[in-house]
Parts: sequence; C-alpha cells; structure tokens
Amino acid sequence: MKPVLSSIELLANPPAVEMLISALDEKSFRAARYNRLERVQRLLDQSDVDVLVLSLGADLPWLSGYEAMPLERLTALVISKGSLPTLIVPELEAPRVRLDDELFKLLVWREGTDPYALVAELGAGAKTIAVSDRMWARALLELQRNLPGARWISASALLAPLRGTKDDLELVMLARAAHITDSVAFALLDAEIPMAGLSEKHVSADISRRLIAAGLARVNFAIVGSGPNSASPHHEPGARLIEVGDPVVCDFGGVYSILDEPGYCSDITRTVVVGEVPDGFMELYDALALAQNAARSAVSSFISGQDLDRVARAAIAEAGYGEFFIHRTGHGIGLEEHEEPYVAIDNSHALGARAAFSIEPGIYLPGRYGARIEDICVSDEDRGVSLNLAPRKLSAI
Amino acid sequence: MKPVLSSIELLANPPAVEMLISALDEKSFRAARYNRLERVQRLLDQSDVDVLVLSLGADLPWLSGYEAMPLERLTALVISKGSLPTLIVPELEAPRVRLDDELFKLLVWREGTDPYALVAELGAGAKTIAVSDRMWARALLELQRNLPGARWISASALLAPLRGTKDDLELVMLARAAHITDSVAFALLDAEIPMAGLSEKHVSADISRRLIAAGLARVNFAIVGSGPNSASPHHEPGARLIEVGDPVVCDFGGVYSILDEPGYCSDITRTVVVGEVPDGFMELYDALALAQNAARSAVSSFISGQDLDRVARAAIAEAGYGEFFIHRTGHGIGLEEHEEPYVAIDNSHALGARAAFSIEPGIYLPGRYGARIEDICVSDEDRGVSLNLAPRKLSAI
Repeated sequence: MKPVLSSIELLANPPAVEMLISALDEKSFRAARYNRLERVQRLLDQSDVDVLVLSLGADLPWLSGYEAMPLERLTALVISKGSLPTLIVPELEAPRVRLDDELFKLLVWREGTDPYALVAELGAGAKTIAVSDRMWARALLELQRNLPGARWISASALLAPLRGTKDDLELVMLARAAHITDSVAFALLDAEIPMAGLSEKHVSADISRRLIAAGLARVNFAIVGSGPNSASPHHEPGARLIEVGDPVVCDFGGVYSILDEPGYCSDITRTVVVGEVPDGFMELYDALALAQNAARSAVSSFISGQDLDRVARAAIAEAGYGEFFIHRTGHGIGLEEHEEPYVAIDNSHALGARAAFSIEPGIYLPGRYGARIEDICVSDEDRGVSLNLAPRKLSAI
Repeated sequence: MKPVLSSIELLANPPAVEMLISALDEKSFRAARYNRLERVQRLLDQSDVDVLVLSLGADLPWLSGYEAMPLERLTALVISKGSLPTLIVPELEAPRVRLDDELFKLLVWREGTDPYALVAELGAGAKTIAVSDRMWARALLELQRNLPGARWISASALLAPLRGTKDDLELVMLARAAHITDSVAFALLDAEIPMAGLSEKHVSADISRRLIAAGLARVNFAIVGSGPNSASPHHEPGARLIEVGDPVVCDFGGVYSILDEPGYCSDITRTVVVGEVPDGFMELYDALALAQNAARSAVSSFISGQDLDRVARAAIAEAGYGEFFIHRTGHGIGLEEHEEPYVAIDNSHALGARAAFSIEPGIYLPGRYGARIEDICVSDEDRGVSLNLAPRKLSAI
C-alpha cells in the first residue's frame, strides 16, 4: 500500500510529507479501505458481535469512504459476520455514493419507506449488535424497537483499537494537516496576525481565513480567549477587545482533504502575550512548557493514556498549579477531531503503535488568565514525534 | 413578550422585520425561555414521561440558551416533573454557561468522574425517560446501562409540537435569516455571481462568502449542482466547470444569530441557467414552478404534512414528471435546518399554527439535469406567508 513510510521521523519533515502526499491517488485510498475492511471482518469473526451498524461519525467514512449527512434520514452500513457490507442510503443522497463492489452493496430507500425495517431485516437473529458512537439516539431507539431481542453495545469497543492504529496514508494526511495549520501558528508567533484593539471574534475569523488560504478544506474551530477569557479552555470568541498585556490562547484546527476523500483533522494551541507579559504569567507559562515537553518526551507505544496524563499532571502539580489544570492531557485525532485514544486518567490502555493524539496541558487561573500548549504527536515503539513544528517559546507579539 | 407580531404578513416585509429585530434584547430571549420552560413543565405534568434528558441538538438551546459542544464529554439538561432542571456540564466548558437561576441549576463534573452516574442519580426511579434525538448513541447506551429499568423514548414526541409552534421572537429571527439569505439569491438571479468557466466548488465558496458578508453567522451548506449534477439533490459541489447551457441548482442556507444567542436557520433554492436554456428544460421548470406555487398557496395551519406534500406531487405528476420527484416536499426549520414538521407522505398531522417549513419540490432527470425551487413558509390559520422574496421565474444568467 502506498505511501510507504520508512520512518515516522519523516512526518516531521514538511517537504517529505508533501512529496508523499503528491504520490497519493484514488487507488491509495481504495487499497487502505480494503485493508481496513479485512481487519474489521477478521475482528468481527473473533468477537461475539454479530452485526455492526455504522451511521453518523467517522467509522463509516473510515471504512467506506462515504460520509453520512448529519440529517434525520438514516444512512447505515450494516456489516454481518462473513458477508459483504450493505450501505443503506436515502434515495436523494444515493448519487453522492462512490460505488465499490468489493466494499459494499448499495441499498437505496425511497421516501415513505422505513429504513429501520431494512436494517432489522439484515440484522434478524443477531444477539449482539454494535452501533457507532455518534449515531443519533433517535435512530438507536428505532433500531431497538425493530430488533427487540438484541444486546446493544458501542462499536468503539471493537473499532477503536483498529482506528487507533493509523496506517501510512492516515499518518501522512495528518502530518500534512498539521503542517498547513502550523503555517498559521508561525504567522501568529511572528506577530503577523493583528490583535491589539481587535475583538476575539475578529481574530478568530482572521485565523479561519488563513487556515483556508493555507489549504485546509474546512475550519473546525478557532478559539481565541484573551485576558481573563484565556482561563476558559473552550471559550467562545466574543466581542471582547484584546488589550496590551493580555495573554491570548489560540486553539485552532480543521480538516485537510484531497481527491474528495474523507479528510483528516488538525489541532494546535499556542498562547501569546500582547506586549508586556503580565505579573506572574511567565512563571505559569514556563511551568506549562516544561510539563508539555515532559509529556511529549514520554510518548511511546507502550505508555498508557493515564500514565502519559500523569506525566503532564505531575509536572504542573510540582510547580504548584495542580488544581488549575482542569482537563485531560489530550485526545486521539484522525478523521475526527476527538477520538480514541484519550490521554486521560480513565484510559488505562497502552496508546499503541502509530497512534495520533494531542498533548495539550493547560493552566487556568479563573478570572485572571490562562495558557495552553498543544501539539499532535504520533507514537511509534519507544518514541514519539510531534507533527507540529511551530515553536513553543512564549511569544510577546 | 417582545417583539409582538401583529400579523404574519409583516414577516414578508424586510424593513419591518429589521425594526422588530433591533428591538430585541437579552430580556426578550430570556422571557421566551421562561415561557418555553413553563410549557414544557406543563406538558411533562400531563404526560407519562418522568424525566427528560436533553443533550446534543436544538432542544437544549431552545430551552436553556446553552448549546452543547458536539464532543464526547456529556452535557445534559435533566428535567424531572415539577422541579427546576439541572444542567450537567463538563468543568472545562462550564465558563461558557450563561447562568440563570430561574431556568436551571448548574452541576459541573470533573474529568475522571462519571457524568452518566449523575444523570442516573437524578433519574433514579423514573419509569419513562425521553432523550433528545441527536444525543449520541454512545451516551444513550451509557444511560441505559445506568438506569436499566426504564423505558426510553424520543423527546421529539413531547417537544416537537411545542418547538413546531414558533413564538414571535423565533418568527422574526427566521424572517431576518431568510431576508439576509435572499440578498444572495437576488445577486444570483441578477447574474452578479460569476459561473461560466468556474468550478462548482468555486461558486459554492463565493456564495458562502456572500452569505457571511450579508450577515449570517455561519454557512450550513451551499450546494451548487451544475449540468448533470443538478439531477443529484444533495450534490457535493466539486471540480466540474460550469458550462454555457448548464442548469445550476443553488441551495444554500446558514445561521443568523444576535446577542450570542442560539441562531436561526435559513434555506433557499433557486435554479438558474447559464446562457441558453437547454432542450426540454423550460417545460420541466414551468411544471416545477407551478407545483411549488400550488403548494405555497395551499399552506395553512390545518393542512397535514402529507396533504401538502400531495399538492406538490400531484401537480408534478400531472405534468408527467411524477417519478422524477424523489424526495419529500419540505422540512420544518428553526434552530435546526431540518426539524419537525415534515411536509412528507408519512406525516399525517396538521402543520399547526405558526409552523415554519420549506416548500421545495424538485424534478431530477438522472444523467441529464434537474431543478428545485425552495422557500421557507410560515403557516397561520387559513393562510401562509413565504419568508423568502426572491423571484421564482427562471433566470438565464
């Protein structure tokens, strides 16, 4: 399967990644899908799950290349043990499907007919049915009504370990997404993005425009939290005007896509200060940067999500900021912005080989200010590599 | 409750709508929410539903003004009979919540604790629990595991009739959203949006930019289907270059929002022809325009979704295109692009008073071309009004 990634260090080499990207064609994506379906079928054979029903979310495009529209009409890929999957699609969306006889049969439903009955027919007699995480509750309730005898579980239990191990194509796509996003982070750190006197909303829109201009297909978010708002990790950029002396947390990412194939996500955070660094902020930032560096250095295939989380948490606690790091250290990334594996206290599993995830500790002093530093890292054996290359030193812009 | 809408005809009067919008303040939104909560509590009292659990989707912002982030951390508004609702929010998103003691108690959960257990505690003993449609399946499975005795149903059964009857504030917001969107439709019909020789993707991006410039907060979609792609109702704008002689279906909409309040959606479709009208297309378009007009004229509070669907369908069938109208006539619209009531064969209920929905028949000849005309209409007693005012005559641009 193309591309062949001789070493993960290449992922931190933008020209090499661009070359690998330019070698991708439709066949590369198709080959990756065949390989994934084979792995899913093999896993299904060995498990007590009889039927997989994939709908909204990334399981479906990961496996079929087709993304369901987040609307009320049911789209579902039904996979039974040992048989070719069936893709159930509403008639008016059927022309969007890229047919592939080796991947799935297409089953189109007309308005006025009941798509849940179609799933029920395919799943008749199944004892255990796994459904994708992001399927709508309404769809699950309809399926449960149509297949009353079955036990229902989350498809993640089965698929997360498969999706968590990225293939070469995915790693190259993620690296390219990261490098495009880095280019805007470089502009930010080089004071090329005007801030003083402008609203957070304005700066957020500016960052979004730059991400699209740099080559992302879509922006997923562009958080700009300034002054006291920098202490709100998921702050909604608002009307607040950025002032001299403000720390500003900028957390942005989106989707990189080629050949009309499902795209891969990026996610980076850099914190800058406008003009003079406020009292106490340098100490906070230094402690944070040390912790983020410690966590990046601890990345391997073997460390568990919780142990890696502890590395960042311990470093921050040691500096006296323990109670102000109020979220997990990171999340997996791929077709979804947030996916498994989580770098969090409740994940006792090893991250595994070729996992991609964020390392993003933060320190937030409520009402005062906060900071976060985030990179996307990839694990491989005893080491990791950061896809993001933008500097982490505090920039006063 | 402000604004007071003396007559729905005002909704088709852009200056009047602008004036009503400028009179809105935070109090207007708050008053609307109190009124909605009262209606929900009253309905809950009379129903056999013990607990409502609202998460992703529009039920939550409709009732609380707060929108859950579409991420894996659980946000849920738990409403038990006769008591103040509880809003369960992950700690790092808590600073986003606009507190309102009269609407809900806030319950913040820390990373590493189990939010589903919190819901289970509040729902202990409940026999019937209703969950919002768009809650993730994964969340529903967790809730079912935590509350094994309960019967689970969709919250729509309870809330759709309430949300389907728009209050004055909602109608004014929807009208303003429609008028902003209309301004781009006018530009399209006046040949101000370049098409010939450009890709669908390019034109889609152009339309999106114009929608934002005109005042939408977000674009939800900008379908541009040209030539044979105009026969694919949910076509993804692609690399195809638009040629002279192409019919082009343009279907676009987004969100209009003020005061950082949850926004209301717009949705319009106009079909244009670049240069000369191709063979047979005029006949197709005329039949479609007649059908769309007939359906708009039939709008009232009393007609059922299926009867209104039949009006459009009959007119198209009579012209000989029956088999090429492959989707329902319309969908409700509000905080969501698609919501109840549906103008579709499987909806036997009356549309009701002050419902907002699309009327969007289409005719699609596979491989050749297609057309669709769409307006957002509001029902009131024996009549309806179209919020969209852009002409429906075929424009050759």
